[in-house]
Amino acid sequence: MQIISSSTIQTWERFYRANFINSLTGFKSASLIGTVNKIGKTNLGIFSSLVHIGSDPALVGYINRPVKAAPHTLANIQATGVYTINHIHTPFLEQAHQTSAKYPDEVSEFEEVGLTPEFLDNMVAPFVKESKVKYALTLEEILPIKLNNTFLVIGKVQQVKLDQNILLPDGFLELDKAGSICSNGIDGYYASHLIDRFEYAKPNLETKRISRNR
Amino acid sequence: MQIISSSTIQTWERFYRANFINSLTGFKSASLIGTVNKIGKTNLGIFSSLVHIGSDPALVGYINRPVKAAPHTLANIQATGVYTINHIHTPFLEQAHQTSAKYPDEVSEFEEVGLTPEFLDNMVAPFVKESKVKYALTLEEILPIKLNNTFLVIGKVQQVKLDQNILLPDGFLELDKAGSICSNGIDGYYASHLIDRFEYAKPNLETKRISRNR
Repeated sequence: MQIISSSTIQTWERFYRANFINSLTGFKSASLIGTVNKIGKTNLGIFSSLVHIGSDPALVGYINRPVKAAPHTLANIQATGVYTINHIHTPFLEQAHQTSAKYPDEVSEFEEVGLTPEFLDNMVAPFVKESKVKYALTLEEILPIKLNNTFLVIGKVQQVKLDQNILLPDGFLELDKAGSICSNGIDGYYASHLIDRFEYAKPNLETKRISRNR
Repeated sequence: MQIISSSTIQTWERFYRANFINSLTGFKSASLIGTVNKIGKTNLGIFSSLVHIGSDPALVGYINRPVKAAPHTLANIQATGVYTINHIHTPFLEQAHQTSAKYPDEVSEFEEVGLTPEFLDNMVAPFVKESKVKYALTLEEILPIKLNNTFLVIGKVQQVKLDQNILLPDGFLELDKAGSICSNGIDGYYASHLIDRFEYAKPNLETKRISRNR
């Protein structure tokens, strides 16, 4: 085992450090965030720093980088109050990654990378038609993180559209069956398979595995 | 495809909703957080809501549930200012899950579940000896999320200990090789394998894959 100190990390080249630190936190749930600006132009961006905040109410957060580095998604969410989060699957992974390029504001990443905007009901933010697990959110709060000028953007889940074949009788979604990817580092994407599910843990009891085929 | 509204989600039974909403955000980087209380008693808990905040400085966040539901880790971090985050691997996954049981404050989860505390230098917080990727953090900020009484706890990476065989020449960590798990829903754990890595995306350029065996 190797030991690395923060002073060593400080000396590293930018991309080396970014890969390393982005790997430390483990596998991340990279997803595509769909928005529109004030005049209805669609925008799509890949974000890997999603975080579950709570189930009741259903709150989901993501970290938005400093405004200079990643302006469009945040500005659109502030302007319209709504956005969508869409799982990424292997067949359109290259297109999803390509949305991380810095396109000018007047360009829609949907058109540039070849993904299809999909609109539901009266929600102005676009979903990704190709995605099998997607949800619309309303903006609840933006918490500035002054330490590095990033933001925790928190939304409330308003509507979910998904492939019903992955929904189990206990509410669990078989994301491996949907082929949802996760990410690691700044540029690595992974497929996952279930090891096991476990029962709710209680003190002094042996942990029991829940068979998948129950 | 099935469409589900927030009013339907509201009607669901608590665990059904928790599984569903915890699956929506995708695969999560479940890890073990190691702390000590004021009198040096060790504590270990599994947390699945880790989030990368930034690489320079190296900042990692996690969501702590309301104090009533999850008091010990947060109180210990506030008391000592330090904690460790430890990747979970399949051989000790059952023990890791078992740390989610509500043990009383005077009990160390290390002893209860059979994992080994490991101390480095003058850091008072314990690492998990069995983990191949682990890091120590100093508390930087606790941001209260008033929407549901949770907290975003942000720490700065101070020291990393890892299996050097998984560190690539560009700083990327091969977490699949380390066997780091990720989680989904409230009780599902997954193994992952690399699909591919991609080059830094630029507008108007074809995305090029980076071969793993470069």
